[in-house]
Amino acid sequence: MSDRRVVVALGGNALLRRGEPAEAEVQRRNVLAAASALAALARDHELVITHGNGPQVGLLALEADAYKAVSPYPLDVLGAESQGMIGYLLVQALRNEFQGNELPGRAVVAVLTQVAVAGDDPAFAHPSKPIGPVYSEREARALAEEHGWTIAADGMYFRRVVASPEPKEIVEGDSIELLVDSGAIVVCAGGGGIPVVREGRRLRGVEAVIDKDLTAALLAEALGASRLVLATDVDHVERAWGTPAAVPIEQTTPWELRRWSFAAGSMGPKVDAACRFVERTAGTSAIGALSELAALVRGDAGTQIAPERVALTAP
Amino acid sequence: MSDRRVVVALGGNALLRRGEPAEAEVQRRNVLAAASALAALARDHELVITHGNGPQVGLLALEADAYKAVSPYPLDVLGAESQGMIGYLLVQALRNEFQGNELPGRAVVAVLTQVAVAGDDPAFAHPSKPIGPVYSEREARALAEEHGWTIAADGMYFRRVVASPEPKEIVEGDSIELLVDSGAIVVCAGGGGIPVVREGRRLRGVEAVIDKDLTAALLAEALGASRLVLATDVDHVERAWGTPAAVPIEQTTPWELRRWSFAAGSMGPKVDAACRFVERTAGTSAIGALSELAALVRGDAGTQIAPERVALTAP
Repeated sequence: MSDRRVVVALGGNALLRRGEPAEAEVQRRNVLAAASALAALARDHELVITHGNGPQVGLLALEADAYKAVSPYPLDVLGAESQGMIGYLLVQALRNEFQGNELPGRAVVAVLTQVAVAGDDPAFAHPSKPIGPVYSEREARALAEEHGWTIAADGMYFRRVVASPEPKEIVEGDSIELLVDSGAIVVCAGGGGIPVVREGRRLRGVEAVIDKDLTAALLAEALGASRLVLATDVDHVERAWGTPAAVPIEQTTPWELRRWSFAAGSMGPKVDAACRFVERTAGTSAIGALSELAALVRGDAGTQIAPERVALTAP
Repeated sequence: MSDRRVVVALGGNALLRRGEPAEAEVQRRNVLAAASALAALARDHELVITHGNGPQVGLLALEADAYKAVSPYPLDVLGAESQGMIGYLLVQALRNEFQGNELPGRAVVAVLTQVAVAGDDPAFAHPSKPIGPVYSEREARALAEEHGWTIAADGMYFRRVVASPEPKEIVEGDSIELLVDSGAIVVCAGGGGIPVVREGRRLRGVEAVIDKDLTAALLAEALGASRLVLATDVDHVERAWGTPAAVPIEQTTPWELRRWSFAAGSMGPKVDAACRFVERTAGTSAIGALSELAALVRGDAGTQIAPERVALTAP
């Protein structure tokens, strides 16, 4: 394990804040703030950066649907396109920041990353991850018929839902490690990775969107990172979240955190990812606000998750 | 210079043959043939693979135009998306082929690649690079009116044309070299690279599609390759191409080749790229059919271009 190696997972808000239109210029502007926060860390850390792709992959799917001359591409291909787009915006903004900070010796590079999942993951039979816009039940049923989608209720509306299987393997892990070992800042495994299954020794793309925080935990473990930092749009994980009794959690352990339940679509996978990394390695993790990234990495902000301190808690 | 290092530039026909619909499944199928030909070379060569993106970036632009809720993304961002898509399909097909050929130790990886051009390149005022599908002249004129495109004849048809400035620098060159040196087969600089300009020490994306063959020549030079192979859908470069007097050229030199003129949108840049690489390095280049890739690399097919043999031609 490298003490200086940190995997940072950027939430969707790094490029698009909730409710903002998915314009290219909005994302170029927003990524500058993320890049600035990341650049401040680059002097003292080996940085590996991953990111979500929800709004972008949803937009690509809608654009593909709107143009009738060609069938919409499957989600593995759209995921690859979104890695290209977001990876480019991040790398360019980071490189510009690093140049400004006089770290010209550090390469900044985005690696297209496939992530293998199990072909028999039960998630394939139970699509649960909503993507794209909301529809009336009638619209959604017509679209499901037309495109072979699975749809599900989401509040008052209906949305397309897709499978979100467990990430099992970072296919390009060796190349990513080589680059990180060389001192490069690497952007990879965006959108949870391009989803593939192994069939014997061959890979095949599948219709899925892998959870990006679970992939970040796997990536951090594979790269021997000492820290996994999940940067999102809330300051802390909260006990009794969404109730008047909500209390921010500052220092905790996987054992403590796993006693609480969290929203399935949002904080749940983050808590699970952060706990997994701590449980499987000797590392620590943090969940908190992108706007406090430096403090989050230092351990001075957000929810900090460390292994059980057995010596202190034993009778 | 490494004797074993070969840069192969795949023409658009590696993924889509002229007239084929731009369906994902068509491209997945076509890429298998290219991957099979490349895999046969991997045992004896350090392979760096680049590719065109004309049909794909054009499709992304059309899809973006068709969806009205978000402004179409600029060509640098669409180029990045196309690198994601094509890089993924190529890497997956190559990896599957290499596994079948028992070369499990070779990593296969796609690197998102920015390519810097000059902000004052005259090409910005004279769009010339065809992208997207072919249209009748009447269709093309209507679309040009609707979208503000520039259009131009491409063979019997018309296509949208965009600015195609000269590639000056492979921004991610150091990371690509590190990976190639390690033995990885690297897919990079697709679609001529994501077009950017330097403004002081900062990079900024621009609306352009760089010629992929000129970028391949620059890449081959930067990586110290000994061979540049431009794989397309014709067997040879021909003197007096398109006339009854057409003669295939088998062995030639840049000096000889530059005396002839070739079609601006297609063979012209290939000939220019192949000549530049030979002129600027001690290497050799080849232009010919993807279906004969192994023979093309060996020097047994296509048009083979080598430096002047001064000893033989001197008086």
